Amino acid sequence: MPAQQINKVVLAYSGGLDTSVILKWLQQEYGCEVVTFTADIGQGEELEPARTKALAAGVKEIYIDDLREEFVRDFVYPMFRANALYEGEYLLGTSIARPLIAKRLVEIARETGADAISHGATGKGNDQVRFELGAYGLNPEIQIIAPWREWDLLSREKLLAYAEQHGIAVEMKRDGTKSPYSMDANLLHNSYEGYDLEDPWVEPGADMWRWTRDPRQAPDRPQEIELRYERGDIVAIDGNPMSPAQVLAELNRIGGEHGIGRADIVENRYVGMKSRGCYETPGGTIMLKAHRAMESLTLDREAAHLKDELMPRYASLIYNGYWFSPERTMLQAAIDQTQQVVNGEVRLKLYKGNVTVTGRRSASDSLFDVSIATFEEDAGAYDQGDATGFIRLNALRLRVAGRKRRL
Amino acid sequence: MPAQQINKVVLAYSGGLDTSVILKWLQQEYGCEVVTFTADIGQGEELEPARTKALAAGVKEIYIDDLREEFVRDFVYPMFRANALYEGEYLLGTSIARPLIAKRLVEIARETGADAISHGATGKGNDQVRFELGAYGLNPEIQIIAPWREWDLLSREKLLAYAEQHGIAVEMKRDGTKSPYSMDANLLHNSYEGYDLEDPWVEPGADMWRWTRDPRQAPDRPQEIELRYERGDIVAIDGNPMSPAQVLAELNRIGGEHGIGRADIVENRYVGMKSRGCYETPGGTIMLKAHRAMESLTLDREAAHLKDELMPRYASLIYNGYWFSPERTMLQAAIDQTQQVVNGEVRLKLYKGNVTVTGRRSASDSLFDVSIATFEEDAGAYDQGDATGFIRLNALRLRVAGRKRRL
Amino acid sequence: MPAQQINKVVLAYSGGLDTSVILKWLQQEYGCEVVTFTADIGQGEELEPARTKALAAGVKEIYIDDLREEFVRDFVYPMFRANALYEGEYLLGTSIARPLIAKRLVEIARETGADAISHGATGKGNDQVRFELGAYGLNPEIQIIAPWREWDLLSREKLLAYAEQHGIAVEMKRDGTKSPYSMDANLLHNSYEGYDLEDPWVEPGADMWRWTRDPRQAPDRPQEIELRYERGDIVAIDGNPMSPAQVLAELNRIGGEHGIGRADIVENRYVGMKSRGCYETPGGTIMLKAHRAMESLTLDREAAHLKDELMPRYASLIYNGYWFSPERTMLQAAIDQTQQVVNGEVRLKLYKGNVTVTGRRSASDSLFDVSIATFEEDAGAYDQGDATGFIRLNALRLRVAGRKRRL
Amino acid sequence: MPAQQINKVVLAYSGGLDTSVILKWLQQEYGCEVVTFTADIGQGEELEPARTKALAAGVKEIYIDDLREEFVRDFVYPMFRANALYEGEYLLGTSIARPLIAKRLVEIARETGADAISHGATGKGNDQVRFELGAYGLNPEIQIIAPWREWDLLSREKLLAYAEQHGIAVEMKRDGTKSPYSMDANLLHNSYEGYDLEDPWVEPGADMWRWTRDPRQAPDRPQEIELRYERGDIVAIDGNPMSPAQVLAELNRIGGEHGIGRADIVENRYVGMKSRGCYETPGGTIMLKAHRAMESLTLDREAAHLKDELMPRYASLIYNGYWFSPERTMLQAAIDQTQQVVNGEVRLKLYKGNVTVTGRRSASDSLFDVSIATFEEDAGAYDQGDATGFIRLNALRLRVAGRKRRL
Repeated sequence: MPAQQINKVVLAYSGGLDTSVILKWLQQEYGCEVVTFTADIGQGEELEPARTKALAAGVKEIYIDDLREEFVRDFVYPMFRANALYEGEYLLGTSIARPLIAKRLVEIARETGADAISHGATGKGNDQVRFELGAYGLNPEIQIIAPWREWDLLSREKLLAYAEQHGIAVEMKRDGTKSPYSMDANLLHNSYEGYDLEDPWVEPGADMWRWTRDPRQAPDRPQEIELRYERGDIVAIDGNPMSPAQVLAELNRIGGEHGIGRADIVENRYVGMKSRGCYETPGGTIMLKAHRAMESLTLDREAAHLKDELMPRYASLIYNGYWFSPERTMLQAAIDQTQQVVNGEVRLKLYKGNVTVTGRRSASDSLFDVSIATFEEDAGAYDQGDATGFIRLNALRLRVAGRKRRL
Repeated sequence: MPAQQINKVVLAYSGGLDTSVILKWLQQEYGCEVVTFTADIGQGEELEPARTKALAAGVKEIYIDDLREEFVRDFVYPMFRANALYEGEYLLGTSIARPLIAKRLVEIARETGADAISHGATGKGNDQVRFELGAYGLNPEIQIIAPWREWDLLSREKLLAYAEQHGIAVEMKRDGTKSPYSMDANLLHNSYEGYDLEDPWVEPGADMWRWTRDPRQAPDRPQEIELRYERGDIVAIDGNPMSPAQVLAELNRIGGEHGIGRADIVENRYVGMKSRGCYETPGGTIMLKAHRAMESLTLDREAAHLKDELMPRYASLIYNGYWFSPERTMLQAAIDQTQQVVNGEVRLKLYKGNVTVTGRRSASDSLFDVSIATFEEDAGAYDQGDATGFIRLNALRLRVAGRKRRL
Repeated sequence: MPAQQINKVVLAYSGGLDTSVILKWLQQEYGCEVVTFTADIGQGEELEPARTKALAAGVKEIYIDDLREEFVRDFVYPMFRANALYEGEYLLGTSIARPLIAKRLVEIARETGADAISHGATGKGNDQVRFELGAYGLNPEIQIIAPWREWDLLSREKLLAYAEQHGIAVEMKRDGTKSPYSMDANLLHNSYEGYDLEDPWVEPGADMWRWTRDPRQAPDRPQEIELRYERGDIVAIDGNPMSPAQVLAELNRIGGEHGIGRADIVENRYVGMKSRGCYETPGGTIMLKAHRAMESLTLDREAAHLKDELMPRYASLIYNGYWFSPERTMLQAAIDQTQQVVNGEVRLKLYKGNVTVTGRRSASDSLFDVSIATFEEDAGAYDQGDATGFIRLNALRLRVAGRKRRL
Repeated sequence: MPAQQINKVVLAYSGGLDTSVILKWLQQEYGCEVVTFTADIGQGEELEPARTKALAAGVKEIYIDDLREEFVRDFVYPMFRANALYEGEYLLGTSIARPLIAKRLVEIARETGADAISHGATGKGNDQVRFELGAYGLNPEIQIIAPWREWDLLSREKLLAYAEQHGIAVEMKRDGTKSPYSMDANLLHNSYEGYDLEDPWVEPGADMWRWTRDPRQAPDRPQEIELRYERGDIVAIDGNPMSPAQVLAELNRIGGEHGIGRADIVENRYVGMKSRGCYETPGGTIMLKAHRAMESLTLDREAAHLKDELMPRYASLIYNGYWFSPERTMLQAAIDQTQQVVNGEVRLKLYKGNVTVTGRRSASDSLFDVSIATFEEDAGAYDQGDATGFIRLNALRLRVAGRKRRL
């Protein structure tokens, strides 16, 4: 007996086993109509099978959206302006996609008159939090059904049994290429959890990785690329203007070829446990390196340092699911304010897992002034004698402290 | 005519051209006795020639100290407990050595009854600040002579003319291996500035680098190493206990072999200008990666996040020369408090510039609990239903805000 | 039917109506033995009636502890070293007492072999969180019963009916002095919530306040007091050495007399809602003002600023119930490290709600150097010319930015 | 012999002794034309005498500007949106006026073709830094003459002798009301430094204060006022719409009457020394209290906490003279973003030095929801059971840590 009375629910539906079981379970358990929503955010899977299956399951309202441009333009790009990195390692590939899904779920609920949304995230992970915080903020009255927290199908066997019992096709899950890992992919990354990763001392097998070449198999010759930035965002690769999604797809292609962007980390989930995850983020890894290089030339020191100090918190907000929140909006205002001047080009060399910056320039906004910094005579651009007073006044409080033998 | 009346000055003396000229200049200009101090901090140069030259210049009190263990144990190791990284890229190799030199200069001044210290850092750089802030804090009454800010020998030609005029040998500067770059080396790193680096769009030549192999020339087979941590510090490599300086020397050797630790950045100096520097930090690059991995398993989430938020400021303090300061001491107390539990082993794979963590474990202090995190049934270690309340209360303020259409 | 199987539970027991009902309810609902724990933390109530009532209810193990000194020494004093203030206004009077209660509940559970603890905090407030986070951290296996989140006695009528039905005396609640507010008192403060405060536009009646005089009724003559600090803690008032609890009791007495320490605020609870509370913290208000004054003379600028930046987070941690946490311990290490030098005396004037600092001195640790700061000639203690270089180098990045018309 | 070749200089000119001497000294020492600039920023002095004196000194270009509205609207109001408070006590009354003066000096230099600016701030204080950082950022090529750092008139006697020698009238300095303190006044505050304040243990005499009544002499009846806020700024008092400068003038009047806004502190100057200052900021003291109250009702918790954490840094920026800087602009963007919703009314009671909030409301933007927070039954607005999961997941990491006996 469900806790809530639901008339119509919008389900984030991939067409895979789990969400197919959920679709049936919602129909049965809640006796309600189900609207399916399937999004292309660059996960690299066919979406039409999801339509076919939804139709077969009696779904009348089926949404299949290509959200790739919106995803990169409105979520990935703003995040990269912040140089966001969770716990020093994780580029937030899964985290940043969830609020977009939440937003569309709520929009579709409004369009279809649904009173609830549902998703296939488990009760142990961060994704449930990200979906639901996003949805609650955008529609405070929405009801949310999280089957994994309600049902008793908590093992794979029970799930398969339920599928068989209700005629849900699972054939695709039995072919040889099925990964034993729990995976999540979108234009920004591909991730792996579970299976042998559950022992953090064990190195995953070489065949786990799907998006990137092993650096050992990557080309023996480095490749050089040049990225053009406008207001902190990449707008061209090697001189070719591209849309945000095109940029990221292309950087994924090139980066993956060169074995770039693998990470293997133990991270702290918002729900309180440590977990181990492996990530492939080829394009994002290049973007972070390049953006920092572009900023190093164009951003003022103190603005850059302030960004660095705020970044861990900004990254945590996104990791924890607070994209749609007053505090993220507030931080974004500060970050975006600094990016007006982040214009120019960065040149990078890619080689067997390495991303190396080999040049950065900005015709309009460089703050690098060789006439000041030069080791040669500077014709008066800088008076070395100024340093004496600078040091002496900065030292004043230390000298006073030193007289008290504190240092 | 010098501004100050000096009786005896302790000079940080390398035996190279610049400090040899300074030695003579101090004797002439200030008419004072000069004590030379030459330290082995792992720069990889013979120190005895400095003694010979100092003797030849009439110096009576000559200090030549091996500070390698003190350098790594009391400066490098504490800094790495903080995962310090300046502006997201720089491992602070030069910055962290300066306070140790300042400390010894002040100690030797006390021992020899000198009333001043002197150094060869220019008026444009950070090092003058680091030397002098350190010295002023440790001895508020010390006088400091910074010849580069006083004299008129501001070009290489004038310096060479002065050397020739005073019979200062410069032969070693004319051999074919002399680098056109301004370099600084110690056990933690080797750095390059000036020359063609003054154009940030220009890639430095392959022959600039001295400590690390080009990744393309590095071995084709990865090497695996295992580091043991106690209280946040590495105490053994592949099971062999080592002293701090031994650890760093060995990691430099292995890392350099595998082309690890090159960086090419534009950074913001404390004196207000941007400058471009290239750095080789093979051992340090490995240490940062490994320490984060060790912490990922053993540190509590909130302590780790707080460390991440404080890190940029801690790094700036060291970069700016405030090692001996109340605020660095305060932050170090917080950082060190967290490291009691950072015990265990990290396994890494080194390959052509890449440092990859392949395992981490801690028999005593791991907070990774597979019984909670598992994707399999967890026998009640975690109640998925708890997530509902967790999300609903975290969402409460967002829902209230959402009712005001703020999100 | 209770969700858990409990053999013995330790109840935080005041002897009042609510916890008396809980005592009976636990016995009935869980069929378990109840141990009562009543603490004197300076709330100003007789504790012996609690013993009598517990005995009457059949309780065999009764703990009545005087925790006043431990409360002030180990909780209040460390918190005031941080100048903690939640949301700019609240001195955390309730928050800081909860972890001590949680600690004793867990200790008593261990001593008595109980497998659970229980408390009378509601499901809407912060106190449940503070009790339970503290208890879970100190004993991860403890079970916790929070009756307000379990039972259906959610209105005052139902509670009274239950009391009557089970012969629980409620007479003390019917005398004329019973406040209509929800109150909480301890040595640090007295608080008021609910009733007419639920409209934040309404001013509470003059008869609400219990601990402090209305400033209009306070003495017309100011009173001066002098506090002596050692390592950041007050150790004497007007030259009389006192224990921590004595200090706070005396400052409450004096401060209350002078109408000091009332606050009327809207605050953000950790569980996600805004609530309105009124607080009387006479002694704490004096302590905060005095401690800042003592620090202003003895703390280095940068350490003081760092403390100020960390303070809001430290205050939130305590407000949210994370006293016993790695992050609070980490911050406390930093804070306490700074307090070694916070020694000296502060003189204050108290008058009709005002606390005014009229003097501060430290024979051993003052960093105030009149020979430097003086408006008169300083005999060379400070070279005004140093300021030119100080300003010019601090301005350098601004000038470079100004050339790009950024400012 | 001056270090620079100057043709025309704009002098910040009050007409008092010091700047009159500077005017003459500039004419003599630099042989240049002087433009005088005198601003009304609410200091409460006649400006026409400055014109008369400048004319008498042969000045041809005289600027006398009423900047009161610009001062409050563009400087004071934005700063109060941040709740800025330096070192927990100082409302930045002097600091916030300096960048406006710097801006006008640079503008007038442009208008008059002057190549330099000059001011009367000493080499020991913060004001020189604030003037000069502001000017350098707004015009990187401007030259700055700071006579106090150049000349030898470092005692009052020498200054008076110089004045007498050059026929500069000093009569106004000999009347009985001349304060022995160094004072600075504008619409936001009046300040006192020097004289007996140079001993931080000495209480200043009752006759030092000029703007506020002694609380003991303030009215015996409290006064209630109501402030209306729009986007974080006060737009009306007691229902009467007012301009920014009118608001501040009126709050100064009322606050001063009630003895509000005195502060006596030891502060840390940017140039490295501690100094003691007394301040009267009646209107500002009311504004800070009221703004916090308005925010307490309308701001989201996390945005408010983030503001609190950033505030000390924002206040330091202003104190140190970085109003016109990339980092202040960046922080202001974040702060202003939050203020869109800070709309409503605050009611305050003023009485003998006390400012007490007695009510706050916002018809459009209150986030206070009594249906959730109520102590009465809430008809399902809040499910107390949610708190169980909230606490249990927040406790999870603490329990894991507790199993390692860390807490």
